[in-house]
Amino acid sequence: MSQEQKPAEGKTMKRIALALVFIAQALAAGDPGLQYRELVQRMTKDGLSSLGAFSALSDLTAGGPRLSGSEQSSRAIESLQDALKSSGCDSVWTEPVMVPHWVRGRVERARVSVSGRKSIALSMCALGGSGGTSPRGIVADVIEVHSIDEAKALGEAVRGKIVFYNRPMDRSKFSPGEAYGGAVGQRGSGANMASRLGAVGVLVRSMTMSGDDVPHTGSTHFDDSVKIIPAAALGCRSADKLSEILHSSKRVRVAMRLDCRTLPDVESANVIGEIRGSEFPKDIIVLAAHTDSWDKGTGAHDDGAGCVHVVEALRLLKHADIHPKRTVRAVLYINEENGLKGGQAYAAEPRRKNEHHIAAIETDAGGFTPRGFGVSTDSLAFETIKSWSSIFESIGADRIRKGGGGADISPLSAQCKAMISLNVDGQRYFDYHHSANDTVDKVHPRELELGAIALAGLAMMIAQEGI
Amino acid sequence: MSQEQKPAEGKTMKRIALALVFIAQALAAGDPGLQYRELVQRMTKDGLSSLGAFSALSDLTAGGPRLSGSEQSSRAIESLQDALKSSGCDSVWTEPVMVPHWVRGRVERARVSVSGRKSIALSMCALGGSGGTSPRGIVADVIEVHSIDEAKALGEAVRGKIVFYNRPMDRSKFSPGEAYGGAVGQRGSGANMASRLGAVGVLVRSMTMSGDDVPHTGSTHFDDSVKIIPAAALGCRSADKLSEILHSSKRVRVAMRLDCRTLPDVESANVIGEIRGSEFPKDIIVLAAHTDSWDKGTGAHDDGAGCVHVVEALRLLKHADIHPKRTVRAVLYINEENGLKGGQAYAAEPRRKNEHHIAAIETDAGGFTPRGFGVSTDSLAFETIKSWSSIFESIGADRIRKGGGGADISPLSAQCKAMISLNVDGQRYFDYHHSANDTVDKVHPRELELGAIALAGLAMMIAQEGI
Repeated sequence: MSQEQKPAEGKTMKRIALALVFIAQALAAGDPGLQYRELVQRMTKDGLSSLGAFSALSDLTAGGPRLSGSEQSSRAIESLQDALKSSGCDSVWTEPVMVPHWVRGRVERARVSVSGRKSIALSMCALGGSGGTSPRGIVADVIEVHSIDEAKALGEAVRGKIVFYNRPMDRSKFSPGEAYGGAVGQRGSGANMASRLGAVGVLVRSMTMSGDDVPHTGSTHFDDSVKIIPAAALGCRSADKLSEILHSSKRVRVAMRLDCRTLPDVESANVIGEIRGSEFPKDIIVLAAHTDSWDKGTGAHDDGAGCVHVVEALRLLKHADIHPKRTVRAVLYINEENGLKGGQAYAAEPRRKNEHHIAAIETDAGGFTPRGFGVSTDSLAFETIKSWSSIFESIGADRIRKGGGGADISPLSAQCKAMISLNVDGQRYFDYHHSANDTVDKVHPRELELGAIALAGLAMMIAQEGI
Repeated sequence: MSQEQKPAEGKTMKRIALALVFIAQALAAGDPGLQYRELVQRMTKDGLSSLGAFSALSDLTAGGPRLSGSEQSSRAIESLQDALKSSGCDSVWTEPVMVPHWVRGRVERARVSVSGRKSIALSMCALGGSGGTSPRGIVADVIEVHSIDEAKALGEAVRGKIVFYNRPMDRSKFSPGEAYGGAVGQRGSGANMASRLGAVGVLVRSMTMSGDDVPHTGSTHFDDSVKIIPAAALGCRSADKLSEILHSSKRVRVAMRLDCRTLPDVESANVIGEIRGSEFPKDIIVLAAHTDSWDKGTGAHDDGAGCVHVVEALRLLKHADIHPKRTVRAVLYINEENGLKGGQAYAAEPRRKNEHHIAAIETDAGGFTPRGFGVSTDSLAFETIKSWSSIFESIGADRIRKGGGGADISPLSAQCKAMISLNVDGQRYFDYHHSANDTVDKVHPRELELGAIALAGLAMMIAQEGI
């Protein structure tokens, strides 16, 4: 695109006249969407001019990563209360949550060796929930598998070994989330199975489709009856290298050392703020994100972006002079990443019994250009929300699809009519997700802001029109 | 997003069964779109697995920038012929085009000074078509304006001065292209007006909304009767700095030196390749992009991305065993950036008289996630294309909107039924456009590939179904 387009100068009067004709026609036709489209456009102008979400995200991520139970997490919880107050909430409070406190420690390293050759360093990091090794580390033979079933089928052959799960995300899929869903089982449950079979350690190929060697962490789960063993993610190039060595050499051993450990649970909190509904204050629309993050980057996309989407959405509503008829409530959950304790605590809190949750909208897919919303609800409510599609057309976020929700709000599903996710363009998400790459420079200020505008728009619609 | 999703293992049989039921139902209902949706899915799997567009773009940009008339441009024209042959074209040829040959030279610099203070360097680069200065440069007072009309109104006050056009792109607009359209007139025609009024030089704020200080070039036009004067783009921070100095100081002078000049026109070429239609070979669908680029980066998004979209689209069609009924023709134009000579030459070529162009689809908006197509045609043909929307839903490129085309194909409009643009998510485009930032590392392999898949899909639909 390069050729000169004539400047708009001189056309302004004509445009104003055309706009007036359009508005008059719409009013005559009784278009109910017009006022809302105008409000979305007002919020768009405001948001894109001020880019408030990005400056909030810069502040939030400047405090470092926010792993549950960490000091940085506590500081983020404090600062997000201030941010919600500044955004114009009528009230802001916290609700206490006991959370796990896993710490990475200082040392995490692995080297692969074939007898008679010099060992090679692998790019790796501990998975959340992994056990540590002794200070001398572990050394063991490696066995490569591509699924939990394959490990299980090996049975006794696994004993005493390091199990290497190496199934890549299927990059031929359009949806990176679907490709993630098809591979992440190895990370979440692979170590549990390996330990059950007597393995001494686990390595898992990182959940990413990018071509780099940065390891991507994430939680791994051990049943109570199962010994907690060391489990780590490998960068994809390191995974390829290890696989290549396993295919070309007879006895391949990996030496690994991890310093991580799980400390006693600590008290943390969900951060909550709300603009009280003027007509139906007991009808609540939750705007949801999570404050905790993994500790390799600073959780800029996951889920700093979601937190600032929520804070900025409230500011946009307030600034556009929208007085919601129903209560719009920000809930910034703790501990989505390794326990979901915040989501569980919010749903179980006794005062929830006297509240009526009509919708919960989670934003936890990164600060990318919004495409629309995924909605799980009854068919009548779905059609109502779908009929609002044109309200979001001016910002390209008009795809209303079936199927929505989010991890934090999932415990609320039994008591909430509509479970909704903000859907964004996810092609880049897993380049950054749970890794040292997830930093604020990977977030585009305009793309991030548009997510906040879309979220504010849907909150407005549900608050004013109900479902 | 982090909680474990159960792996797909074990659900495969059920899914296959459901898919078969769905296919059977669709066939029973005579769904005409089913075969096309399947072909788009086949091309999606192929494209996203092999990421051919990105490797082609890496090769293309490794050769450096491709300014019209340059040696690198000639080499790119050669290599793109090879690429089209490899992609499976039945025939590949070039058509000669005389193009302007502007060269930047080695020196471009500017400093601002206020009497009694140390001068400050400004981040700048010459605009394409700018005149050079003498080796000693020029020094003149600066006068800031925000539009060509404002410059014109100043009249004689401009004589002997450097005119500084400082109207920013309106970032409150959702569409960056619209914001560009509202500001680029200063760059395209501001120097012409300033010279007419006796100015000795021009500085223009860069056409970008990013916060950096990288200057963005682009063409500026002088009428034949007007003296060609030095004209340069300023990085936005430098523009802000200069404006601040102008507001706080009495006499502000800028010294600038530019080495650029215009050499005699040289012969270059459009690159053309086609898959001949099996039933209606004389009906032609043009897939259009331009091979030339500005010279500060390597034209990765503008319009290397478009070139490899076109090459890859042909490969995808061939590889999916699609035998187009109508001819699908790649036209990789020269000189979109500073003359449009390639577009004019293609439309004026005598053999066009015996050809029947039914559609031209231009991709010149960067290698970002595709959203759909803009279409300018008669209302019946528009409705036909719009009815294909669901074919593109699986890759999120299903927004079919009125209004399309592109600079290269614009001279063809009188002889082509449908003028179409591939529309992509443009929020990041002007961070890179025409600047040193426009390099291959700013292009995401999957986002780029999806554009090629969308382009191949629409080419397939028009080739098989007609409009």
